[in-house]
Amino acid sequence: MTTFFLRILFDDAERLGPGKVALLEAIAAEGSISGAARMMGMSYRRAWLLVETMNDMFTEPVTEAAHGGVHGGGASLTPFGHQIVERYRSIEETLRRAAVQDVAFLERHLRKRTG
Amino acid sequence: MTTFFLRILFDDAERLGPGKVALLEAIAAEGSISGAARMMGMSYRRAWLLVETMNDMFTEPVTEAAHGGVHGGGASLTPFGHQIVERYRSIEETLRRAAVQDVAFLERHLRKRTG
Repeated sequence: MTTFFLRILFDDAERLGPGKVALLEAIAAEGSISGAARMMGMSYRRAWLLVETMNDMFTEPVTEAAHGGVHGGGASLTPFGHQIVERYRSIEETLRRAAVQDVAFLERHLRKRTG
Repeated sequence: MTTFFLRILFDDAERLGPGKVALLEAIAAEGSISGAARMMGMSYRRAWLLVETMNDMFTEPVTEAAHGGVHGGGASLTPFGHQIVERYRSIEETLRRAAVQDVAFLERHLRKRTG
């Protein structure tokens, strides 16, 4: 199935794309940044930096300590973090539906036809 | 202004994104692959390989020799090449319009507000 790689490029070089959104989803699923990092096959440091980048770029934090504070390990999404995920996935879904005809045209002209 | 980086990922690892589409537009504007490569700041070899990739992935060629054949230098887009550009830009424009509300939500929550 044809899919999209979609990155939103804000002014001032801020970006929101599939990597950050998937990380937020993984934090929600795993209940910690370290668990999310493992799930995504990235280092804890990289996951932590991506979360910090999001907390810096937005006016509200995207994650919060779930229990035990800094050294307790748990993290969950804030309501705002969930909204970021929902808005991004909503844009993707809108794109998917709106692009059906143009994508079908392209698929019809692929040498290896997609399913 | 907020913009999008959009790449279409077909099955079999074929992809169509802003680089290939901008190259097609540059060929149409410059009348040759070498002129397009210069305009885009890429090597002639890279531009030529990208054109070959598109000619391989689609059932119809995207460019044709404009005059003088292989060594004559000129190249233009085929009608199909123009259609690829139009379909991709159409998807982008549809995305831009359909995503207005979600993008506005994200922009409102940026620490550095975009224009």
